[in-house]
Amino acid sequence: MAHINVPEGVPGIRSLVMFRPETGKYLYELAEVLLRGESPLSQADRELIAAYVSLRNDCMFCMSSHAAAARCLYGEDDTTVDDVLKDMNQASISPKMKALLNIAGKVQILGKEVKTEDIEAARAEGATDKELHDTVLIAASFSMFNRYVDGLASLTPTDPEAYKEMGKRMVQGYALPKTQ
Amino acid sequence: MAHINVPEGVPGIRSLVMFRPETGKYLYELAEVLLRGESPLSQADRELIAAYVSLRNDCMFCMSSHAAAARCLYGEDDTTVDDVLKDMNQASISPKMKALLNIAGKVQILGKEVKTEDIEAARAEGATDKELHDTVLIAASFSMFNRYVDGLASLTPTDPEAYKEMGKRMVQGYALPKTQ
Repeated sequence: MAHINVPEGVPGIRSLVMFRPETGKYLYELAEVLLRGESPLSQADRELIAAYVSLRNDCMFCMSSHAAAARCLYGEDDTTVDDVLKDMNQASISPKMKALLNIAGKVQILGKEVKTEDIEAARAEGATDKELHDTVLIAASFSMFNRYVDGLASLTPTDPEAYKEMGKRMVQGYALPKTQ
Repeated sequence: MAHINVPEGVPGIRSLVMFRPETGKYLYELAEVLLRGESPLSQADRELIAAYVSLRNDCMFCMSSHAAAARCLYGEDDTTVDDVLKDMNQASISPKMKALLNIAGKVQILGKEVKTEDIEAARAEGATDKELHDTVLIAASFSMFNRYVDGLASLTPTDPEAYKEMGKRMVQGYALPKTQ
């Protein structure tokens, strides 16, 4: 049961946003611009960063839902998401994406963990300022979303099918749920 | 020097938001609704939660600026901010505020660190669902802002006077800086 009186049966952040739409509106708008807005990073790569940071923050709801969205975006037979979540360093992804995920992992620990050499390693693989910026901000924002979802103990579905459906919806965009 | 090419001499998050106003707009709007919007928690208490979490995240820029804003809001001779930042458990604050800061400190570590007993302890001191919600979300959002500011190594002024001026401006609200 959630720590506060949110609508019953509604999973994760949606229940919190229905409890407090005044703040929820801005959280959904932020998710939309970060994950669906204009960026040099593909939507699939951005969802993967979100899932990777959520895994590291042990947030099952955000990890499962954003992994599901990323799987939709990479395509059915692509194993990128599962490979990265199993072992990022061993995954067959581009050296640039690996360097960006390394930075996202540092951000997940704490801002100051990102060192000049991490940035330089990403630049050496072709990462631009905007890609570096978006990576850091997405990783930082999931350090918020994860804590919000788990800090209030919102409902985390355990059925993988529930996340598949969620992932499909999320690909369409982050729209504020109706508060009845 | 910041990790990316932001406007020179502009401190902290302002420089990042000037680099990427497309996302910055939503970050400032979120800060405004969380810290200046309607809430059962006073603006002073909300700025204190922000400063307390930022201290725990070792983010000197956010800690110093939000502490300065909180000092403005509590009033000139009030020592609440400095007492809490020195040792929250020894500070002369209300038992409810102490219980809420305890929760904010748990959120800073990770969402799942917030236990039912932490919530019950705050409720026993009169905390409402909305106060619990706003405490968790403010603590979570500073786990983002801190990582954004330090993860890109934005400029952190060392002169305390700079923060005094910043604090006064922040009390007026969180407005998006002009991008020239």
